[in-house]
Amino acid sequence: MLTTLGEREVISRFFQPLVRFPGAHDLLDDCAELAPAPGQSFVFKTDPVRAGVHFFADDSACDIAWKALAVGVSDLAAKGARPVAYLLALAFPQEPDAVWLQDFASGLAEAQDAFGLTLIGGDTDRAAGPMSISPTVIGEVPTGRMIHRGGASPGDVLFVSGSLGEAAIGLGVRARELGQTIGPAPDGLGAELSESARARYLRPQPRLGMKAALRRYATASMDISDGLGLDIDRLITASSHFGPEPVGCEVNIAALPVAAAVQSLASDQGVHMQVAIGHGDDYEILATVKASDADDFTALSEAGGVPVTRIGKIEAAPGVRWRAGDGSYVSIGDVGYQHFPCS
Amino acid sequence: MLTTLGEREVISRFFQPLVRFPGAHDLLDDCAELAPAPGQSFVFKTDPVRAGVHFFADDSACDIAWKALAVGVSDLAAKGARPVAYLLALAFPQEPDAVWLQDFASGLAEAQDAFGLTLIGGDTDRAAGPMSISPTVIGEVPTGRMIHRGGASPGDVLFVSGSLGEAAIGLGVRARELGQTIGPAPDGLGAELSESARARYLRPQPRLGMKAALRRYATASMDISDGLGLDIDRLITASSHFGPEPVGCEVNIAALPVAAAVQSLASDQGVHMQVAIGHGDDYEILATVKASDADDFTALSEAGGVPVTRIGKIEAAPGVRWRAGDGSYVSIGDVGYQHFPCS
Repeated sequence: MLTTLGEREVISRFFQPLVRFPGAHDLLDDCAELAPAPGQSFVFKTDPVRAGVHFFADDSACDIAWKALAVGVSDLAAKGARPVAYLLALAFPQEPDAVWLQDFASGLAEAQDAFGLTLIGGDTDRAAGPMSISPTVIGEVPTGRMIHRGGASPGDVLFVSGSLGEAAIGLGVRARELGQTIGPAPDGLGAELSESARARYLRPQPRLGMKAALRRYATASMDISDGLGLDIDRLITASSHFGPEPVGCEVNIAALPVAAAVQSLASDQGVHMQVAIGHGDDYEILATVKASDADDFTALSEAGGVPVTRIGKIEAAPGVRWRAGDGSYVSIGDVGYQHFPCS
Repeated sequence: MLTTLGEREVISRFFQPLVRFPGAHDLLDDCAELAPAPGQSFVFKTDPVRAGVHFFADDSACDIAWKALAVGVSDLAAKGARPVAYLLALAFPQEPDAVWLQDFASGLAEAQDAFGLTLIGGDTDRAAGPMSISPTVIGEVPTGRMIHRGGASPGDVLFVSGSLGEAAIGLGVRARELGQTIGPAPDGLGAELSESARARYLRPQPRLGMKAALRRYATASMDISDGLGLDIDRLITASSHFGPEPVGCEVNIAALPVAAAVQSLASDQGVHMQVAIGHGDDYEILATVKASDADDFTALSEAGGVPVTRIGKIEAAPGVRWRAGDGSYVSIGDVGYQHFPCS
């Protein structure tokens, strides 16, 4: 690292330009003051990302910044919230130089402009260990209208947005650029699919285009951050906890929108499903809607630029049942990424 | 570490009991929904603490939890805000066992009940490096009435709450229990002053009792987190940035409320002042009020249980002037703790 910048200079050169809101006092105050618009509430999420877990320390600072913000904004998207603001706590093992910080700030600027939010506060520290970026994101919903994980009822249709597994392939591509073997081996992919997967891994796109569809029709919604397998379990668990009766669901494996990059992998169908079900970096949305709303939900989501696929239905029988194309039930095994304490 | 707990069990056993608010959905959702009361806004602060910087990894989990929350709540107190809620991102180098987590949760429970806020969300991760606890605290103020750092004008009286330097002595005491030599050597202190200083270091008490006085009279306010020397500079810098003209101040060194433990140190006056001015763990409040309000401010703050002392005045001449009892100006040198990148 080349330069020695004071805390005040770091803030004024790199972070003050990201403030688009007078209540943040150009980051010169201890706190920011912010109120939701009349009739609206805030929704909150804190979602740290760390080098070696969510990104590679050698990724470009611009991509790291984008991903750090996108991960939290994806949660807001799933809740039907409009992104408003974020705070950012940074911990660096070594002082980054001005070039890195400028690149990082430009990634934040791109991401916050794309997602519609503004920096309102933060903290910068040196600490041993991997680089850590801890955003707390704030969104806005009509009061009482945040879409919960726990609202699914028997008869509801289970939807997933976009496609599954592409970011996992991107992880495999990116890892191999760095001489590492983590993530699925991207064997047999052409240059175009590899590059698209790599971009998807490095720059996830929160599904903000689903806001109108989710607000109008979703009975439950969450983003897929740890893999479809784990996250369906969580939606069912929450819906059983908050609903009048436990619920379960049946998932139609043949209907899963497996990404083209996954289908092109030189490996068998079992591996394809493992990749599509067991990885979370796609940041797609898992949502349920009443069966009578399913067509309208699909149309409104697509009008917002986000394709959605029916992948199953909520049932009264507890548990998650994965059904293959031939009608048989299969075990998907132990897939999905649990941050703690599996590592 | 003795046990292996799943993420879901950690949340349900230790953190769900800290939720006192239905909008947090028992931490089973991705986000919490929360709105300020009518006519109120939220104020936000993210303030991570780390083992080896803000606390010792060997401190009791209960004390660590208290301090992590107190540090952020102290900022809310300085802004005249009523604490409402917090999110908590935890990173552990090793999985903590159930005994540690229970102790940590009981420290959070004590602190949140003492300060009046509730857990609404969080994240738990394993990561190499020192244990890191990153709360984002949320308070409430009447809209537009958050007290800024940057509101001091010439003629205002500069106040500090409580006493200065006691937590620094506590750091010295605690370090020596662990065989380390950081912090001032607590030579010559009796058992009572040592224990009181130790408690002050481990369990800072945010000055929430000043809320009414600050809201009514303060023109500027901040908590002293990095030492009076650095933080006076910051108040003056912010007031110069936001005011119509740059401002400065004169500080009356003889008036500083140096803690009894510091005055009892077996060292000279220069060291005493260094300890009182250069350390921030006291979490006292630095505030300015119009001269005509100074007596009423003092009375209302004391009615809230917080003694305050006049230590100087804001002037039109830029810069901070430290004036000794004999009327001479002295340089206080390079005191105060800058988190980044001085370490």
